[in-house]
Order: sequence, then C-alpha cells, then structure tokens
Amino acid sequence: MLIQAIARVGNAVRLLDQTKLPTEVLYRELTDYRDVITSIKKLEVRGAPAIGIAAAYALAMAVGQQNDSSPATLRRLADEIKAARPTAVNLMWAIDRSVSKAEEQRPMTVEQLTALLWAEAEAIHNEDRELCRLIGEFGATLIHDGDRILTHCNAGAIATGGIGTALGAIYTAHQQGKRIAVYADETRPLLQGARLTAWELQQAGIDVTLISDSMAGMLMKQGKISCCIVGADRIAKNGDAANKIGTYSVAVLAGYHNIPFYVAAPYSTFDDNTPNGDSIFIEERAAAEITNGFGRQTAPDGVKVYNPAFDVTPFELITGYITDRGIRPGGRAKNKS
Amino acid sequence: MLIQAIARVGNAVRLLDQTKLPTEVLYRELTDYRDVITSIKKLEVRGAPAIGIAAAYALAMAVGQQNDSSPATLRRLADEIKAARPTAVNLMWAIDRSVSKAEEQRPMTVEQLTALLWAEAEAIHNEDRELCRLIGEFGATLIHDGDRILTHCNAGAIATGGIGTALGAIYTAHQQGKRIAVYADETRPLLQGARLTAWELQQAGIDVTLISDSMAGMLMKQGKISCCIVGADRIAKNGDAANKIGTYSVAVLAGYHNIPFYVAAPYSTFDDNTPNGDSIFIEERAAAEITNGFGRQTAPDGVKVYNPAFDVTPFELITGYITDRGIRPGGRAKNKS
Repeated sequence: MLIQAIARVGNAVRLLDQTKLPTEVLYRELTDYRDVITSIKKLEVRGAPAIGIAAAYALAMAVGQQNDSSPATLRRLADEIKAARPTAVNLMWAIDRSVSKAEEQRPMTVEQLTALLWAEAEAIHNEDRELCRLIGEFGATLIHDGDRILTHCNAGAIATGGIGTALGAIYTAHQQGKRIAVYADETRPLLQGARLTAWELQQAGIDVTLISDSMAGMLMKQGKISCCIVGADRIAKNGDAANKIGTYSVAVLAGYHNIPFYVAAPYSTFDDNTPNGDSIFIEERAAAEITNGFGRQTAPDGVKVYNPAFDVTPFELITGYITDRGIRPGGRAKNKS
Repeated sequence: MLIQAIARVGNAVRLLDQTKLPTEVLYRELTDYRDVITSIKKLEVRGAPAIGIAAAYALAMAVGQQNDSSPATLRRLADEIKAARPTAVNLMWAIDRSVSKAEEQRPMTVEQLTALLWAEAEAIHNEDRELCRLIGEFGATLIHDGDRILTHCNAGAIATGGIGTALGAIYTAHQQGKRIAVYADETRPLLQGARLTAWELQQAGIDVTLISDSMAGMLMKQGKISCCIVGADRIAKNGDAANKIGTYSVAVLAGYHNIPFYVAAPYSTFDDNTPNGDSIFIEERAAAEITNGFGRQTAPDGVKVYNPAFDVTPFELITGYITDRGIRPGGRAKNKS
C-alpha cells in the first residue's frame, strides 16, 4: 500500500503524524487551521512539498473558520501560517500563491473565497502529485529488473503530495513489475532512513534492507548496489546538489565503485540564483541530535560536536538528475548533452 | 589524565566498566576471578589486548582462591576463563601463555604458582604497554603540529594495557607538544567513537569533536582533515586490514581527497595464515543493534537489516601501517619499500 501523508477530507485535512513513525501509524484529521500550524511546528508534517500543501489547506480552513473574507484578515491568517516554519521556502511559496490567486478575484464572499482557497490548495497538491508521477516515470527508465538501489534519507511519498522523488522512481519501477531491492541508509543523526524510508517501502511491499550509513561502502565493494538514488533540497546552477548530510560520501563511494549516482528532484529545485555549491548555506543543528539521539545520552558531557544538516555533492560526482522534465545529465554521464 | 582501564592492585584487579561510559565512570576492584569472568562476558572489559590482560590476572587470582596448585585444577580454571569469550583470540593466547609458563616450572606450591601467574600476567600487561608506547612513538612521527586527525571506533587506551594503538599515536604527539585536534566518528551501530573515544580523549585534555559517520566525507572536502588513523583487528599477509565497519568507507574517502590513511596495530596483528582480505570471515551481528540501538525502537517491526561487524580495507587504500617495529608502507605510500 502506497502511503498518502496528506489528504483533503471535506473541509478537513488528514495528516500522517511522522513523529510517531515507525512504531505507531497515526493519522490526524484536523478541522482547525491552528492544529495544522501545530503539526507543521512539531514536524508531524515534514518534507518541503508536504509542508507547502498542508499550509495551503490550512489557509482555506482558516478563512472559513474566521468567517471573514477581507484582505486584511486573509493577510493576517497567511502571516500566521507562514510563521509556523519561517525557513520553509515551499510553505511561503504555497501561501503566497493562494493569496495572489484570491487577490485577483476580489471582491468575494466568504463562501467564494473559501471555495477558491480550497481549490487552489488542491491544485498545488495535484501539481505536486503530477511532478512526482513524472519523476517516477523518468526515474524508472534508469532502473532495471534485478536492480539493488541504495537511497539516503527520505525523499519518499510521505515528504510530498504524491509518490515522492527518489522513492517515486522506485515505486514506479516496482509497479512496472521490475523486481528490485532497496538498501536504506539509516541516515544519522535523525534516522529518516530507518524511521521513514524503511517504513514506507515496507508498507508498499518493496524489498528493503536497513543499514548503518557506514555500511554503504562495503555493500558497493561487494557488488550489491546497482545504483544510488537520492533527493535534493537545492541544486545550484552548475549542478552542485545540496541534500541530507552523508549524501556526498555516498556519491564519492559510488564514483569510486563506478556505480551510477542519481539525484531526483522537481525541476524547480534548480536554483539559478545559486551559482554553485559554495554559495549554499549549510545549517548546523543541535549537538543533542548526536549526543542524545534516542532517549539516552551516548556521548560524554560537554563534548564538542559538529552537526551540519546538509552537504553538497558536486556536479562531477552526479551521473544524472531525474526531474519532471526528463533526465538531465550530470558530470559522470557517459553522453553529456 | 590518561585513562588506565586495567590495573593490578595487590591481589585484586581494578577494571574500568566500559558499559557505563560515558555517563558514569565506574572502576570495579575485583578479588574473585569469577567476577572478572563476568566483566569479560558483559563487555565491561573490551578490546582484544585488555581482555587478554584481564584474563591473565584472573587466572592468578583463581589459583589463589582455589588454594590448589595441581595441573588438573590449573587446566580447569584456565578453561573456565577461556569460556568467558570463546572468540577472543587474545584471551586464549594470554591464558595459554600463563599455563605454559607454569607447566615449565613444576612442581610448585600454591604460593609459588600464584606468584608465577601474577608475574606472568604483569609481564603480558607490561609487554602490551610497551607495544602501545612504541606504536605511539612511531605514529607520532606522522603527526604534525596543527594536524586534525580523523579516527573511527576506539583503538584507545581503554582497549589495551597501555596508551592504545591509533590513539596511542595521538597521545604521544600531544605529549610531544604538538597542537592537534581529533574528529571522532561516532561509529554506528555501537557508538564506540561517541561513548569511548570522545570520552577518553576528553579525559586526556585533547581537543576532540564528535561527528556522525556520514560527516567524515564533508570534513575532508572542506580541508579539515590532515590524516586518518584507525586500528585493526586483523591484517592479512597482503596488507588488507579488517577493522570496525565503516573503516573501508573512511579509507575510500581519504584516498579520494588525497589524505593519508594509517592503520595502527601491533606487528602481531599481521596474520601470515590469512593470504588476503577475502579470507577474513566477517561476523554479522544482531539487527537490534541498528533497530533498537539506544533504548527505543527506531525502525519498523520486522524490517530486514544487514549488520556486518567489520569491513576490510585493501592494501591499495592504506598509506602506511604504524606498528611497534616501525612504519610499514601501504599501497598508497609514496616510497614503497
């Protein structure tokens, strides 16, 4: 069963609480937009596309609840939702898109505005679903019967409004009847691979094996990996791709073992305002993610920790980019276009 | 302060309980050899040399407690101690050495035999201390003022009777006044880097920063690593080195970034009966180390797990071996002898 992390249910939104995974599968059906904000703040919804979609639904709910279609109220509600996670670019983008659409149609009754905002949220959701479908279709052309695919972190259905990006390619190949197996890096420090990727692949009936991040190299050496597919948070103009910490190491290892390394992401992830990977700011996160990750302290008091959230994989180490517009060759492509 | 994990205290042995680290520093002073067996079984003592030394002390204690110097009793006690960890080669070696020494001197009173066994255990301990000292001296010649050294797992003082192997080189360079910093891979799944290496370096006043295993590649790319030094469990005749899982990935990454990669181990770790790395059996460990590592479940029920305890780094990826007999060049050495 392919997991759907967000769904509209009448005038409510149903969200999978990802903080409870993998030991509990809890869907929350929310009718109050403030509960959606809380879900975003608590990371119950995660993944850039999923956050944007949830936020757009929240805006439609909010106007209905406030029973006020004035521009001032719409703007106040939009700001309130945007503040849920101020660094989430997709959240800003989705809310701004819905607000712009509303402003074009003024004046409107509450009923008209609410209907418009629900429709716009559904459009955002449907477009993301279609992007994922296209990425899946293109990505599946790179996956062959019998392939064993390594992935890192979670670029899956639960991070998007559709079947995911990196995992979208895997789901599509699986649905085409290709017999594939997936190795999921657990992805320290936050274990998205163990908690989320292993879980959603298991739910979809795909053969998945969990490993520690440090085991990927050995698997490659043993000839157990056919290709690597990962997601991306941002891709610079020159093709350098920022993704979850550890992605760069996987790319170096894949290059050394002559294993194709693909980055799957919507075309919109290419950011022409970022010339190269050096211009991408790398957020550093709390030491406790490493020292106290799973309910108990596993490192000495006061130890220094370096905990970058992302790393940058240079164009030269990427075989290709799997996008909704097709496969774009990377620096390791045999036939560069 | 340099940590001493094993010490003779009169007719007792003082052991650092490594299962309590890093949140509790507990030394157990044991006067009953059965308590030493329990400590070995519970992994309170770990590290091949440390286990051998503890076992040799236990044999001396055992004969004193039994008040019987007969060959049959000695053999029974030796077998009882050997059974504490049947796969620990150093344990077998240390006990056999003490027993052989005793058999050469027959007949003896209980007092004579006990004194001989204590002396032999101290000899084993002192020899290991000297091996570590020599490895430290040779290793320190490869470390320069200002170096930032990456290590993986724990090849430290607490694994040996002395200052450790990989960490021995680091301690010696530090004592020589070289300003150095260490990056410690946390070393999933069992986190020896976080729990043990970070702790003992911190105790010794050495600048140490803890990272997840997946971050080493990014640090190398950023130019933050001067060299890598790791230990080894076994080194094949052709130079292939088995060590904690993840070591191979570090070696590939070091090679890619043109960073020296050293393996520190006593010369006795070279096993001429093992022609190459392919002949080294790789133990697979319990899935729970990955799925339930730190007090709570972090992977879905029933997920497949691959959990090899070791990997093999081929000769070609090793710059040099730091041994008690000097530096032996590896496949990446500039001037191979």
